Amino acid sequence: MAKTTALALEKALRETTRDVEQVLEKILPLEDEHEARLFDSMRYATLGGGKRFRPFLVVQSATLFSVSRASSLRVAAAVELVHCYSLVHDDLPAMDDDELRRGQPTVHKQFDEATAILAGDALLTLAFELLADPQTHENGNVRAELVGALAGAAGAHGMVGGQMLDLAAETIELDVGGITRLQRLKTGALIAFSCEAGAILGRASTEPREALRGYAHDLGLSFQIADDLLDVEGTIEETGKAVGKDAAAGKATFVSILGVERAREQANLLAKQSVEHLAIFDGDADLLREAASFVVDRKR
Amino acid sequence: MAKTTALALEKALRETTRDVEQVLEKILPLEDEHEARLFDSMRYATLGGGKRFRPFLVVQSATLFSVSRASSLRVAAAVELVHCYSLVHDDLPAMDDDELRRGQPTVHKQFDEATAILAGDALLTLAFELLADPQTHENGNVRAELVGALAGAAGAHGMVGGQMLDLAAETIELDVGGITRLQRLKTGALIAFSCEAGAILGRASTEPREALRGYAHDLGLSFQIADDLLDVEGTIEETGKAVGKDAAAGKATFVSILGVERAREQANLLAKQSVEHLAIFDGDADLLREAASFVVDRKR
Repeated sequence: MAKTTALALEKALRETTRDVEQVLEKILPLEDEHEARLFDSMRYATLGGGKRFRPFLVVQSATLFSVSRASSLRVAAAVELVHCYSLVHDDLPAMDDDELRRGQPTVHKQFDEATAILAGDALLTLAFELLADPQTHENGNVRAELVGALAGAAGAHGMVGGQMLDLAAETIELDVGGITRLQRLKTGALIAFSCEAGAILGRASTEPREALRGYAHDLGLSFQIADDLLDVEGTIEETGKAVGKDAAAGKATFVSILGVERAREQANLLAKQSVEHLAIFDGDADLLREAASFVVDRKR
Repeated sequence: MAKTTALALEKALRETTRDVEQVLEKILPLEDEHEARLFDSMRYATLGGGKRFRPFLVVQSATLFSVSRASSLRVAAAVELVHCYSLVHDDLPAMDDDELRRGQPTVHKQFDEATAILAGDALLTLAFELLADPQTHENGNVRAELVGALAGAAGAHGMVGGQMLDLAAETIELDVGGITRLQRLKTGALIAFSCEAGAILGRASTEPREALRGYAHDLGLSFQIADDLLDVEGTIEETGKAVGKDAAAGKATFVSILGVERAREQANLLAKQSVEHLAIFDGDADLLREAASFVVDRKR
């Protein structure tokens, strides 16, 4: 039974990847003007692989409310654009200064720094353009709510604030509470939006929204602890990016504070806990449940 | 008569500046968390002066359709956030590498490069959050249309594309047509959105929208030629930023191709032409008419 669900999850992840990449491919056209380099770099940043885990969350949460797949895939693509933009900017020399991402040169290595800055800016902007388009949902209030929620998750009180805090973490000492807050902002907020997006699209009532929020909160933290574990235990071949960077930068992480064993326990506990929020959805949420296991067991 | 209008314009510009800065002040709170530096830099980038010319265009175009001032000021603030973010990123070392803006150190000089990148990202994101908020307009379709139009103007097919082209202009040779396209993207698109925003807020019909688009097109180009002239004729004291940079970078501009005299003629001609589009608005558009003179006569 567990194996069947794991296979179903793999299949769903593959299908989401295929379908969301089709949407991304369509909205990221090749241009042959002098600024073609910008479009090339946007495509490079977005279409070069990735787990597409956030799109999966959008599509699965939307399924709970019988949202059309065309709608949820557009929102999924918008979230992925924001995720990819954040990677491009985080990798910049002035930020984390990374040369490798998904096993390939980062955007500023493949192109140049100015192009990477602009590509990130354009991807972020495109995400909002995509959400605001009437093709995403026929109801303007829903489109505006999606824009507001994504902006809230991505901005200074969300992902960007988390990245700022992450940079500060090289000089200030964070305890577990501080790191939890950092991660809730840096990765948790966008994961939470991904799970809530389905509820917004489906104009869901408060109860299922709260349930998805609870699920996303625990899942996001579990996801991040697993990421910290990969930074310690993973290899560059598995993860496609540099490892051991947090320790080298003297940054406190869940693993540096809790140790590997307790961190793994904590990730598993949170994954288990996340699933409990989904009780109200019965069997419809099985793939979201399985995703919680995927998050802690993944190798990249 | 002309003098009266010039004084009225000055007054309107001052009032818009005061009111839009009040909105910006409110949505850019001071924070005392570890990421306070991010909020400080966002405020520094946004509240440190500026002509507030785009906000003026939003407010004035909205006046033509009896839009509430509270609504138009929020859209005006959103446009200004996008304008300020673009300046922060354009000034970065990897881009135009400027140390001075509005007579003050640029954001990456005052703070640091990573903070400047993140501040720009957060300002851009906040612009969309502001537009999507129900306080901006009661109708979701209007809010979503504003988001879509601003994103279109700011993104790869607008301002960001123009900046990419501007970087390319250091190595490729552009003719007048090429520079016109560059400027239409880099500055024209956001000026056009500013003028159209009032029509969107007021749910205007096609005819006045087209009129405002025509006005904005000519005004934007006139604005840019005046900017090129300032880069040649202005002083660092007047403009608050480095001058003579385009020539030093070997970039073609309207002035380098047309010469000072013909460029000035062209700016004046475009300003005059822009006003003709406003015929359908009678006296309601007098300040927009006066703005066309302001654009070519300004010293910064």
